[in-house]
Amino acid sequence: MSETTDGAVGTDRRGLRVLDLATCLHRLATTPVGRVAYPDRGEIMVLPVNHVVDGASIAFRTTWGSKLHRATGDGSMSYEVDGFDDATRHGWSVLVLGRAHLVNSDAEIARLQALASPPWTVLDEVSWVRLTPSEITGRETVTTS
Amino acid sequence: MSETTDGAVGTDRRGLRVLDLATCLHRLATTPVGRVAYPDRGEIMVLPVNHVVDGASIAFRTTWGSKLHRATGDGSMSYEVDGFDDATRHGWSVLVLGRAHLVNSDAEIARLQALASPPWTVLDEVSWVRLTPSEITGRETVTTS
Repeated sequence: MSETTDGAVGTDRRGLRVLDLATCLHRLATTPVGRVAYPDRGEIMVLPVNHVVDGASIAFRTTWGSKLHRATGDGSMSYEVDGFDDATRHGWSVLVLGRAHLVNSDAEIARLQALASPPWTVLDEVSWVRLTPSEITGRETVTTS
Repeated sequence: MSETTDGAVGTDRRGLRVLDLATCLHRLATTPVGRVAYPDRGEIMVLPVNHVVDGASIAFRTTWGSKLHRATGDGSMSYEVDGFDDATRHGWSVLVLGRAHLVNSDAEIARLQALASPPWTVLDEVSWVRLTPSEITGRETVTTS
């Protein structure tokens, strides 16, 4: 039988535990890498980035240039973080749906730089993107014993 | 300075090493979990699944029901796998762009079931989806020493 743990608000029809918002935000804040997904000329791009949780939004650095402008032009963007243990076959994921925009304020950029850990690769011509969530949901597998 | 390793075909303008196709396929085959991304009513869904590499395509189980039909109805679907080491700040990712369709043949479903590892959660009304790639690309950070 499965046990209820903190941070769950029930089970969905697939038998996955539904995570509450506080748990989703905590996992976003404590997971260094996630994946940003956005439409680009009829395809869906999915790219890992290091993110910062800033209040109710997520921000990340990019060097995408024109690609970024297309992404933030349309505005629809999603962000996913997850964690898995192949040995115990336990996994969870959090998905943020929202709208993206370029961060233009120098003060805001300075604040995000201060929040962020150093980038993993050398980045020239960095832009910051802020994703404002419209929906945050999370699920995890139920450990059976 | 960075060292060239097997499986790289150069460096992109962001300083990331570009992985060759054989390396991308190998990482897809040896990574148990990836993320499927598809458009759904103006948003982009990103959900982790266990996948199977079957020849030149990727297949995975779902219980999405009507959501799945919308996803395969539009057809545009992407799949991402990655790996990260926060301690060494090394990371890589592989992105598959393609078109999805439902697997309808009983023989094909039986073959995919045989290839797959057991699902991580109890799945009712399972459908198999096949993603036929139009493009497979991969990148990894360059370890500097």
